[in-house]
Order: sequence, then C-alpha cells, then structure tokens
Amino acid sequence: MRTKLNIGLIGYGFMGRAHSNAYRKVNHFFDVPYQPVLKAACARNELKAKAFADQWGYESVETDWRRLIERPDIDAVDICAPNNVHREIAIAAARSGKTVLCEKPLAMDGCQALEMVEAVEAAGVPNTVWYNYRRVPAVTLAKRLIDEGRLGKIFHYRAVFLQDWTISADLPQGGQGLWRLDAGVAGSGVTGDLLAHCFDTALWFNGRIERLTAMTETFVKQRKHNLTGNVEPVGIDDACAVLARFANGSMGTFESTRYARGHKALYTLEINGEHASIAWDLHDLHRLSYFDHRDESITRGWRSIHVTDADMPYMDKWWVPGLQIGYEHTFVHQVADFLANLAKGEPTSPTFREALATQYVCDAVLASAREHSWEEVRK
Amino acid sequence: MRTKLNIGLIGYGFMGRAHSNAYRKVNHFFDVPYQPVLKAACARNELKAKAFADQWGYESVETDWRRLIERPDIDAVDICAPNNVHREIAIAAARSGKTVLCEKPLAMDGCQALEMVEAVEAAGVPNTVWYNYRRVPAVTLAKRLIDEGRLGKIFHYRAVFLQDWTISADLPQGGQGLWRLDAGVAGSGVTGDLLAHCFDTALWFNGRIERLTAMTETFVKQRKHNLTGNVEPVGIDDACAVLARFANGSMGTFESTRYARGHKALYTLEINGEHASIAWDLHDLHRLSYFDHRDESITRGWRSIHVTDADMPYMDKWWVPGLQIGYEHTFVHQVADFLANLAKGEPTSPTFREALATQYVCDAVLASAREHSWEEVRK
Amino acid sequence: MRTKLNIGLIGYGFMGRAHSNAYRKVNHFFDVPYQPVLKAACARNELKAKAFADQWGYESVETDWRRLIERPDIDAVDICAPNNVHREIAIAAARSGKTVLCEKPLAMDGCQALEMVEAVEAAGVPNTVWYNYRRVPAVTLAKRLIDEGRLGKIFHYRAVFLQDWTISADLPQGGQGLWRLDAGVAGSGVTGDLLAHCFDTALWFNGRIERLTAMTETFVKQRKHNLTGNVEPVGIDDACAVLARFANGSMGTFESTRYARGHKALYTLEINGEHASIAWDLHDLHRLSYFDHRDESITRGWRSIHVTDADMPYMDKWWVPGLQIGYEHTFVHQVADFLANLAKGEPTSPTFREALATQYVCDAVLASAREHSWEEVRK
Amino acid sequence: MRTKLNIGLIGYGFMGRAHSNAYRKVNHFFDVPYQPVLKAACARNELKAKAFADQWGYESVETDWRRLIERPDIDAVDICAPNNVHREIAIAAARSGKTVLCEKPLAMDGCQALEMVEAVEAAGVPNTVWYNYRRVPAVTLAKRLIDEGRLGKIFHYRAVFLQDWTISADLPQGGQGLWRLDAGVAGSGVTGDLLAHCFDTALWFNGRIERLTAMTETFVKQRKHNLTGNVEPVGIDDACAVLARFANGSMGTFESTRYARGHKALYTLEINGEHASIAWDLHDLHRLSYFDHRDESITRGWRSIHVTDADMPYMDKWWVPGLQIGYEHTFVHQVADFLANLAKGEPTSPTFREALATQYVCDAVLASAREHSWEEVRK
Repeated sequence: MRTKLNIGLIGYGFMGRAHSNAYRKVNHFFDVPYQPVLKAACARNELKAKAFADQWGYESVETDWRRLIERPDIDAVDICAPNNVHREIAIAAARSGKTVLCEKPLAMDGCQALEMVEAVEAAGVPNTVWYNYRRVPAVTLAKRLIDEGRLGKIFHYRAVFLQDWTISADLPQGGQGLWRLDAGVAGSGVTGDLLAHCFDTALWFNGRIERLTAMTETFVKQRKHNLTGNVEPVGIDDACAVLARFANGSMGTFESTRYARGHKALYTLEINGEHASIAWDLHDLHRLSYFDHRDESITRGWRSIHVTDADMPYMDKWWVPGLQIGYEHTFVHQVADFLANLAKGEPTSPTFREALATQYVCDAVLASAREHSWEEVRK
Repeated sequence: MRTKLNIGLIGYGFMGRAHSNAYRKVNHFFDVPYQPVLKAACARNELKAKAFADQWGYESVETDWRRLIERPDIDAVDICAPNNVHREIAIAAARSGKTVLCEKPLAMDGCQALEMVEAVEAAGVPNTVWYNYRRVPAVTLAKRLIDEGRLGKIFHYRAVFLQDWTISADLPQGGQGLWRLDAGVAGSGVTGDLLAHCFDTALWFNGRIERLTAMTETFVKQRKHNLTGNVEPVGIDDACAVLARFANGSMGTFESTRYARGHKALYTLEINGEHASIAWDLHDLHRLSYFDHRDESITRGWRSIHVTDADMPYMDKWWVPGLQIGYEHTFVHQVADFLANLAKGEPTSPTFREALATQYVCDAVLASAREHSWEEVRK
Repeated sequence: MRTKLNIGLIGYGFMGRAHSNAYRKVNHFFDVPYQPVLKAACARNELKAKAFADQWGYESVETDWRRLIERPDIDAVDICAPNNVHREIAIAAARSGKTVLCEKPLAMDGCQALEMVEAVEAAGVPNTVWYNYRRVPAVTLAKRLIDEGRLGKIFHYRAVFLQDWTISADLPQGGQGLWRLDAGVAGSGVTGDLLAHCFDTALWFNGRIERLTAMTETFVKQRKHNLTGNVEPVGIDDACAVLARFANGSMGTFESTRYARGHKALYTLEINGEHASIAWDLHDLHRLSYFDHRDESITRGWRSIHVTDADMPYMDKWWVPGLQIGYEHTFVHQVADFLANLAKGEPTSPTFREALATQYVCDAVLASAREHSWEEVRK
Repeated sequence: MRTKLNIGLIGYGFMGRAHSNAYRKVNHFFDVPYQPVLKAACARNELKAKAFADQWGYESVETDWRRLIERPDIDAVDICAPNNVHREIAIAAARSGKTVLCEKPLAMDGCQALEMVEAVEAAGVPNTVWYNYRRVPAVTLAKRLIDEGRLGKIFHYRAVFLQDWTISADLPQGGQGLWRLDAGVAGSGVTGDLLAHCFDTALWFNGRIERLTAMTETFVKQRKHNLTGNVEPVGIDDACAVLARFANGSMGTFESTRYARGHKALYTLEINGEHASIAWDLHDLHRLSYFDHRDESITRGWRSIHVTDADMPYMDKWWVPGLQIGYEHTFVHQVADFLANLAKGEPTSPTFREALATQYVCDAVLASAREHSWEEVRK
C-alpha cells in the first residue's frame, strides 16, 4: 500500500499542467512508496482555478496561497507561480512544515534564493527545484558517463538555449502567458528562464563556475504592457552570452536568446574531455552523441545513441527499445525520484541549495553585463 | 459533463499498458464529450490481471473474456490479447452490441478479418483498429500534405520496418512476451507485426496495392518453445521484402526484418511525387522531411520540420513549440479521435473494414513468398 | 623516373573529363611508377575533339577510333563513348594489344560483355572497368571492415540509387548528353546506368547473387528524339526494383529511379550482419556509418566516421584530417591503383571479368521484369 | 590564347601543395584569360625544394626568396612560408612590382599587416590573401543570400573552429609541420590560425566588429621544442573564446580550440536574422542549412541544401548535380577569380586591406585576453 502525499499546487499555467500530468502518471509507471494526491489547486482567479482543477481532478480549489499553506491536509506545496512570488510562498510553506517543490529559477536573485535555502533548511523540510532537463534519460546518461571519468580531464563546456518566439515587436509583455517578458515579475529574461537551465546542467556535469564575463542585449526596447495597456520599456534581457572559467580549469561558453530564427527550444550542450566528448540537443532529446577517442581509429566516430533501451536511465519503466518518450516524462522522473527519496529520507537533486548556486551564476552574469567586467561567482 | 464510456480491456501486456495510459490521459489534454472509465481488466491469469488492474486503476477483474462481454456495465471491449484470439472475441463482442477496439493486425488472415468486419457491420457497433502510427503528428501532417495534392502524380512509395531483437538463436519462442515468434499465435512474423503497419500507412497515403511479389526468410530455423519446453521449428517469417504496384501507377517497395543490426524500431517511409517528396522515420518521430521542387532552386533542399508547433496535428493539446511528444501519445490521439467521432456517430479510421484491406495485402505477401510469383491483392 | 603510359581516350563527355582530370592529377599525389601521358583524344566531331584536347592538353586528335587503335604510340585505350560501342572498340583494342580501360556498364548485355572478357583475356592485356565508387575512401573502408569478418553472418543487403532529373516529360531523348535515355545506345535505363553501380558494390561486398525478381517501369512513354526530331517511344526503364538472394544466404533489395524528387545522386547502401552493420550515402560520401553490437550497451550507437584521417584508404595522399575530398578523387584512386598494379603485373579490380558478373545480374533483372518471374543469375 | 602568369611559390608544405594543385587545375575547369605557369618553387632546403618542384612540375628552384623576387621572369609571388616571414617577403615583392598572393593570416599582428597593406597599395600591385573558405560554394551562396537581404535585421552571429590534434602533451612544438605551435613563428595559436578564418567570414557576412572581450588558455604549458631539443614554455593560445558586438547591432560569439575531442576541422557558423537563418559546417562543406520563417508554417523547417547543382556558385564548372567537390576546390576558385579579376583590373577579395581588418580583430582578441577587458577593434 502506498502512502498518500497530498499536493497543493499553486499556478495553473504551462508548468501547472506539466506537474499535474507527472503526479497523475507516476504510479502507473514507477514503483514508488508514495501516491501523490491532487488535493488542491490554487490561483487568484477562482474561475480559472476551478477549470484547471476540473481538468486535472484536483479535489479542491484555493484562491489565496496563504490559505493553502495553512491547510493541514496539504503535505507538499508545489510552486508554479511566477518568479516574483517564489520567495514569499516557499518561505511560508517551509515555516508551516510543508514539503516544497519550486519551479525554476528558484528566485528573482541569489539574495532571495539564499533566504529560501535558509528557510527550508531551518525547517528541515524536503525540497527540490524543477530543473527538469537533468532527467531527460540522455542527460542522465551523460552525467553517468562523466561521473565514471570516461572523459578524462575536461577542457571545454559549451551550451546554448536558442528560441525565436519574441522577434515580433508587436508581441506585448506582461500578464498571463507573457509574464516572462516582464522584468518585474520574471526578474530577468533569457538569463533566468533559459540560461539557468544551462547553468544547472553545467554545474551538475562540470562543477563550479568561478568567474565569468557576459553581455546582454534587449533588441526590442519597448513593448505594450498587457496589464497597464501602455507601451513600456522592456526590462529583460532578450539575449545573453557568457564566457566562463570552471574551477576544474575548463573553459565555458554559454549563449541564450529568443531571437534565433529557426530554433524553438534548442538547448544544446557539449563537453570535451581529454579522452571523450558528449553532446546533446533538446530538439532530439532521445539521442545522445558520444565520441570516444579510445575507439580503434578506423571505426572511430561520433556515436548517435538512441536512448530507449531498458538499460538506459528510467527507460525500463516505459515502452520498448526504439520508442521515444518526450518532454513531459522528465517531470514524471523528477516526481518518481522525489517520492523514492522521500521514503529513504534523502534529498532530491537539485535541492534549493543546489539551485542557489545556479542563481549566483545568473547574478554574476547580469552584473557582468552591466559592468562590462569579469565577475567572481559568489560561493 | 462528459458521458462515461466503460472500458473492458483484454490483455495486460505492452499494448494493455499503452491503451490504459491513453484512456487515463485523454481527458486531461483533449476536450472530448466522453470519459473512458477503466471498468474491467481481463486476463486468464488472475494474479497478473489483478496486478495490472491495481497498477492502472481498473475497477474489477475478469479471467474469462466471455464473462467480460456479458457484463452490461461494459460499453467497449478493447482487445489487446494475442492475434489468434482476436476473431472470436471481436465477433462475440460485436454480437453483444459492444463497441470494439482491436489491436493490429486485425486477424490471423484475411478470411478471419472478413468475418470480423461482417460481424461489426452487422451489429452496427463502432469499431477501430489500433494502427497507431497514423496518429504520429508528423504522419498525420504527411497525410494532409498528400491529400492537398502537393506531391502531384506519385511515382514511388518505399517503407521499411527494421528491428534487431531476434538475432540471437538462444532466444526462445512462445509464451508471455514472445508469442510474436510463435506462428500458431501470431499468424505470421514480421509481415503481420511490422509490415502491416507499413501497409496500413501506405494504403492510407497512396491508395490500393493491386499486386505484389515477395520473399520471406526464417533465419533461425528452430528455437526452444517456452510452452512445451522443446526445441521446435520456427514457423514465422523473420524477414520479408516486397515489390508492389499501386492502383495509381506508382511503384512500391517494402521490407521488414528483425535481423537488421543497429535498428530497434526503424519504421521509415518515403513517397516521391512529381512536385514533392516526403520522408519520415519512427526513430525521430517528431520530425517530417519534406522536399518541394517548386521552391526556388538556390534555396531548395529537404526541410526538416520539427512537428511541435500548435498548428500541427494534435500539437495544440500538448506543450510548447520545440518540446517533443513520443510514442505513447499516438494512442491518446486515437482515443481522442475515437471519442469525438463516437459523439458524432462517425467512424474512426482505420475501421475493421480498412484494416481488412491491410490483411489482404499481408495474405498476398505470404502467398507470393510461398509461390515465388506475383499475386493479385484481394479487393 | 616514371615510365610513360600513353593514353588514347575516346569520348569527350562527362566521363572524358573525369578520366582526364584523374590522369592529370595522379602523379601529384600518388607515388606510382607510371606517368600517364595524354597522347590522343578521339571523337567523331573534330571540332569538339579539338576543343576537348585543348582544354586538357591532349597532344593530338583522332576522329576515328580505329585510327587511334592502330597508332603504335598509344599504350592504353580508355573508352568513354556510349555503351553501344564499347564492345567493338574494346575487342579491337585488345586485339591490337592495347591496355583497355572501359567505362561502365561494360556492355549492352552479358552476351557482349562475355565476348569482351574473352578478347582481353585472349590478348592478355591489362583491363579494368570504371566502377569508380569502389574507391570512395568510405566504401573502400567498408570493404575492409567486411573482409575482416567484423559483421559476422550477413542477413541483409540493401541499396538504392535515386535521381530526379528525367521527371519532366518535355526532356528529349538521344544525342549528346541524353543518350542515356535512348535504349538503342544505352542498352537499358537505370538498370545499366545506376543499378549496375549498386550491383558492382554488392557483389564486391557480399558475393554472388543467385537469383532475383524485378519490376521496371517507364513513366514517360514517349519523348522527342534529338536525332530524328520525332516523338518516339521510350525504350529504357525509368525505374527498377529488385528482390535478390545472395549465395551466402542473405537477402537483398535494390531500387533505382530517375523519378525520386529530391534526390540527385543518392546512392545509399546498407549491410546488416550478425554483429555489425554498415551504411553509406553518396550524398555525403566522406562519411561511413558503422554500428557494432559488441560495443558496450550504454554507449552503443551508429558511429558517423568522418573518413578523412591519414589512416583511411587513400587519405594519406590528400589533405589533413577533417578536410573532404569529393567525387573526382575516386577516378584518381582508380588510376593510381591501376598504375601500381600495372607495374606489379597484377589485375586491377574490377576487371572485365568481374564486370561481366554485374552484367549478368542486370540481364536477369531485365528478364525478370519482362517475364514477371524469378530468374537465376548466369554464372 | 591565354596570357601566361609566371608563379614563384615560397614554401613547400601543406599550403604549397594546395596552391600548386589549384594552379594546375584552374585552366581545365575555368575559362579564364590567364594560364598560371609554375616557374619557380622556393625553400631554404634545396633538396626539399627540388623534390617539391619535381612533384608539381615547377620549372626551377630557388633557396633564397630574395633571389626569387629579383627574377624578372616571375610575375607573381605566392607566400606559403610561415607567418613570421610574410611581412618581409610581401613588402619586398610589392616593391619589386610583383603581384602578391599571401597565405593567411596576413601577418603576425595588425602593425605588420598595415605595413604590408601600405606596401602593396603604394606599389599598386594586385594582391589577395588565401582565406579560402569564402569560396566553398555553400559559403559563397550564403553570402549571396545575406547580400540579397533575405535575413532581415541580423541579431546573432556565431562561429566555432574546433580541432583536437594537440591534446597529447607529448606532441613537440616547432619545426616543419609544427611551427603553428611555436609562438615566435606563428604569432599566436588558434586565434591567428583558426579564428582568423571565422573572423574573415564574419566580417564579410556581417560587417565590422566594433568591440569584443575574450579569454584564451594554454592547456599544455610546456612542450619539447623541435629546433632546440629543449622543453620550452608554450607561447601560443590553445583555445580562445570571444564575445563581440558588430556595428550592425548584432551579437557575436566565437570559439576556437585544438582540444575539442572528436572534431578535426569543425568550422561551423550560423547567422540569425529577423526573417531567416543560415548555418554551415566545414565537415560537410557541400551542404548549406537555411531556415526561412516566411515559408508556410506547416512545411517550415531547416532546409539542407546540397550545393551541387549547376546554378550554385562555381558548380557549373565541375560535375553533375549530387556529386561533391571538396576542400581543394576552394583554392581553384580563388585562383580562377583572381585571374579573371586580373584581366579586368579589379581586386580579388579578400585583399590585403580586407585581411588587415581581420588582423585587427585578432589583435583585440589577444589584448582582451591579456587585460581581461572589453577592447575596441582598431579601424
């Protein structure tokens, strides 16, 4: 018999759907000791909250997250609300002894994030941040290959996250679906939204970034704001590029933009070591590219690994070799790991503390872009 | 309020899971007037049936499919049992007035399939066959492009379905998970299991196949049988290749095998027309390749379409551009279409009758391989 | 000091250029004991012959190939004229004791080809046929991997050669540049022109084809003839598909067409063995795809080998790793091998006799297409 | 009748071969009014110079470049010697009224390059620098597409040039074949050798780079020096990464290394505009990737253009559609353009002056890496 874990989810957007789907699916595919129960969905707009709850089968609805947190029948609070409310909700939830799952980026900046870390650690509550791409099977496999030392000394790390959805100057900012363009709500643009994913993976794969230099750009300087109705300055970074030095002596380059025509969600990463290299691409997330210089020379080449066999991370739980899973499964994997770790009393990576490190990298990026200088990354 | 549709599912294997997942997910993503209810799971082995029912939340268990069919609280019978029992179950279900959803291939041969068609048509019950690859968004898109006449006169159709999982001579035949190697249960080997998919798509895309010639091979002549414990002759075709003539004057080539080292489920298809060509590959199912000769010459090339935007078939229901769905979603799409059509009183393609045409092609393939001659395909 | 080998080349078309370029380049890159001297270019049209000779530096011109063959200062006759004159020229050249290099296909049919084989063998003259694709470094590498037994027992061989240049019904047949559409001159259509390449490689890689069944089609039934000015029936096969049985027990499929929109010269081949598979594609001729099942499972995948390193066949003679060579180099390689073998008194593959085997396969293809039956391939 | 242009070539290494091959081939394929004559090969080592001259058919040999320049029978001096002697030779050649063709990078630094520009301009002699990648047909095509304005406003430019041949710490520096590792001879490491190519294309495609910030690294700090026999510090940059701002408002990222395992000569570039994007990769140099947002949405995708048709830049001179040319042909194209321009009295891009701009970018890169600061690029 599985123990029930009552979920209270805040927010009903894209991430609210992705998480709800994960809670719904996990027990059909993974043998974990907990069963998530969709206890309450919370959003300020009651009609929308109700519609969302109906769609996903939440048992109840709240319109004030404070009420949700007070409810004794809620075990875990899942924060899918915009970035500017993460801090307040997470700290309150932790103080109420709730388990906290928070969407990324953890906070508006490292300062907020540190408070949140201190709150969950003081409260001793389980916590995790939804950097879901760690649990793409190909990415998890890459981590395993790196941890086994197959690459030898690392020389290079490079990642880009390229999109093209904000090129039109007619696109407004702010409000439902577009809060990511509103600096007051999102904190930053591509740095917190996209590069944060790249940094999370990079730190996981390749260790600490010590210092960096960056440039950002806002191509469209003003956009109509959906909430005020006025044309207002755009405060976010539309694009960002970074040179970085890792503590292990390797060099890093990072770039993100929403102005790269032809790319929808092209998160690619590559790591080059003395013996081997690995590359991955979110647009074909079920494949991993691997080159091993120790292969015999005449048959040496980049291997395209179709990560669908049962001995691949998570894949014994799904279908049969050759059949792909997709984006949504990364959330199922995170829930499955979270529930398994909960039973063992172990943390689920990335914790708030690990996500704080990513936040510090983002802070350094934005400071460097402002100051046109190399910046040390806070530890 | 959605109408409930009570499902009784027979079989608990790979397909049982794929269908159950589809029933569970459909209402979270698609706005359809029916809600599938997992009423009963049926399998001869009660323990396994119970475990399966628990895993997926079926309300009850049956161990005799006849009992299931008699139950007045069952609206629709979903047949995921091995091929050799499709006919008997489907006919009985139809006669009981149940909606019937049947896994592919519809039957052991055309003769059985015809009986089944007659039964569902006589009973007037809604019916469909799970040729799920029609509902990969890229494949559905290809159908749309073809139907719009973009390709002009068609010259060529080619498809292969290549696997490599039965190369080892130590692999036994028969029993749970391996009945596909047992001719008495499966009817045929790759012809019914894999080429049937290729034919289903081919007929849908390119119309009737009039005649064909084929060769088959059984590379491993005998294998241990799991049910008898004896080494027994292998009766299935391990590999099959076909030359075909379509009614529209185009030429077809088809090949399938379970002995193509390096390919897990490589279903690729290509269609060449006067003006344009289309290609698709199950190993990267979220992409469609399209070449249009009417493009300006200096920028003309094969286009790799990442089929994830909201204006692509089914994709407005899932995530955001750039984020893949996978294999399992094809079943969700079929359920969604089935439920929508049910409400409108319309058939859901492929019906039993459409699947009969595929069965006749398979019959001609096996006859030709036996006779070393060109065979007409029964109408 | 290199020995001079005086070349008399017949024909001034596409192949005349490719061969002349090879003769011109070979000594700059390969250390071979002979130096080809461009002694005479021969063509019926004196003006065109002269222009060609000027372009390439031929020392003299002939307008009658019989005159060329009689010249004592000619050591080797290179036949780049259309297929229908190969036989007569080659036999006369052999009887005059000349070395003979002949474009492919060797002849109009096996009957002619046999006479030619007998002539060169009776005369004891060195001979070779320009099946140039054997000497794409990636293809030569594939041959080496196969000969080392890495693939184990072979199950499948498949090849296609797809083009799209004759789709327009307005394209005429016959005359300069279009004799390949004129059955009286070319002998056959895609079978002799394109599939012959596929068969040559297949026999080289995988041994004898014992029997086969084929279908051909002529999509455009009549075309204006350039020489007569009249609209005349088209006698060639526009497209051809073949099922074959190799002597080693493996199955083969072959297809060729000039009606596959989007493909210019897409010669692809794949061979699947028990342990490993190999694939290659003329459109990216500098790459070889290799899959080895003996690789560790979690890093197993198709390897894309960029065949440019110095330990690859022929590649130590060219540039540096990573830098491609192209189509024309295959002819340089054949000349280099031919000259090296000449010095050693060894044959250069494919000899006329080896090319005869390919001709017999083509004969069986055309007979099968006519008779709608399986045909044995003559030995 | 073609006018003869007497070439005196200095250096006999990799580039000496590439240029000699180009001079030998150009008149066979291109209809230009000049015929290059291989008059003299020059190198300090007489034996090597003689062997090289024999291999390529140079009429004479010199061991002192000053002697070569004094010869009245030399029209054009082609400098393939190491970077540290470019300046002195080029200036002397210009003063002697010789046409000057110089390998890239033009000089050790911008200061030298400026002197060279002034010398050729003062002397009024034709001059060009062998940035050969401009004349890969796919790259020339990209330039055409950009110049036609198809991309709209440009947002991003990114390029990398990745190799892996110096990872072994046992590789020595200095002397024949390894002078590129010797800072005193090469001037810099990957910056001048590889990134210079990337900058040359970038400036050609996207205009002036105004300022940049860079980091460099020398992974192997000391290597045995071939000329002294001692282990000596390594003075070159093994890897370099750059953030740049173009004058047109777009952002640039550049990276180069000889420590990227799995890449031999992976020069990739991408440019993203408002309407369209273009990408190219030296490892498959015959293809261009093009994405046009103005394509109809359901068939929109990256187009892989196989740049082999006769309407592609330079390709009417080579073979037939579908058949690749390679690396060496870029040099033939540059010679062909140079000779055609010579006849018309027009400059051949890139001239010394254009190459000076690239040199200034390299200077800024090295200064920035030293100073850890943003640097303005000298005009």
